[in-house]
Amino acid sequence: MKFPASIQKLIEEFSDLPTVGPKTAERYVFYLLKQDPEKIKELAQAISELQTKTTVCKECNTIAESNPCAICSDPKRNKKILCVVSDARNLMTIEATKKYEGLYFVLNGELNHFEDIDPERLKTRQLIEKIKNNPVEEIILALNPTIEGETTAMYVSKLIKPLNIKVTRLAKGLPMGADLEYVDELTLANALKFRNEL
Amino acid sequence: MKFPASIQKLIEEFSDLPTVGPKTAERYVFYLLKQDPEKIKELAQAISELQTKTTVCKECNTIAESNPCAICSDPKRNKKILCVVSDARNLMTIEATKKYEGLYFVLNGELNHFEDIDPERLKTRQLIEKIKNNPVEEIILALNPTIEGETTAMYVSKLIKPLNIKVTRLAKGLPMGADLEYVDELTLANALKFRNEL
Repeated sequence: MKFPASIQKLIEEFSDLPTVGPKTAERYVFYLLKQDPEKIKELAQAISELQTKTTVCKECNTIAESNPCAICSDPKRNKKILCVVSDARNLMTIEATKKYEGLYFVLNGELNHFEDIDPERLKTRQLIEKIKNNPVEEIILALNPTIEGETTAMYVSKLIKPLNIKVTRLAKGLPMGADLEYVDELTLANALKFRNEL
Repeated sequence: MKFPASIQKLIEEFSDLPTVGPKTAERYVFYLLKQDPEKIKELAQAISELQTKTTVCKECNTIAESNPCAICSDPKRNKKILCVVSDARNLMTIEATKKYEGLYFVLNGELNHFEDIDPERLKTRQLIEKIKNNPVEEIILALNPTIEGETTAMYVSKLIKPLNIKVTRLAKGLPMGADLEYVDELTLANALKFRNEL
């Protein structure tokens, strides 16, 4: 074995993180070895508390520190709009814009044939129930602009259709700050197709 | 705040790791959120034990689980050769080749004007003492082939000179598997300069 056991052990643990290989894990470990014991304790504690302090909101499936989550239990949120996202992280990203005042619903994934995520794995039944039992007037499908996201959006919109509720999705077009020269063809084609009047 | 407190806290902790920005830290955290609690516990524990289970060897300054370390206390190691490295990680890398049977000495850094590492910060005094009190016949300066490493090698070799001991350094030349076309000029110049007879 190349390293002392406790170093080797942590290198292996870190190597399980996404995109982290053994060399990067080594860097992390040797960086931590040089830190204050207090700092190390904080990191270990933050990791320990990650799952114990968080829960899944029974209303919208997001990860939160209370159940129902702060958003679902906020009386000021507009209950007539429901934004459907694929995971909790996307919910938090939209929430960070501070431009949305409705409620959310986390589908828990996107249809993906290769990763074996089929309709049964998504929380579509719970979504339909939620729409039926609440005064929802508009559903925003805020899924990723990828093949998986589009497929899921098509699938979900078909399920919702019988309920006769307005379904919208995020606009497609040029990202802010983009240089036309470097924008890919599909994005540019969408920007043309969905052009709007000034 | 974009994320629940316990998620935000861990994102900040991870962001302190070298080369990790907030987006990468987010990925790590959301990956961990999906893991078994058992797995999380193991990671937290490995981090907690990193410093408590390791110590600095008083003989060679490396990081080890015993003091003196397993290498320094191994009677089979050749005490006549001393390999000087800049840090414990380099020691472990050389040790992993299984081609070296002498002892090591960790300098604890390389001279670096920009990072304010001056001769006082290096363990040179301890090195001189070690050489004087042991039957050392050869010192291998296994420092990095960088400006800092070369400067440190020059500095250390001057200090050792009065002791009249053979001082060598790692060979310079082409790395295995390299393509001549892509090798930098300095490396190629060294390979020419230090060419050896077949």
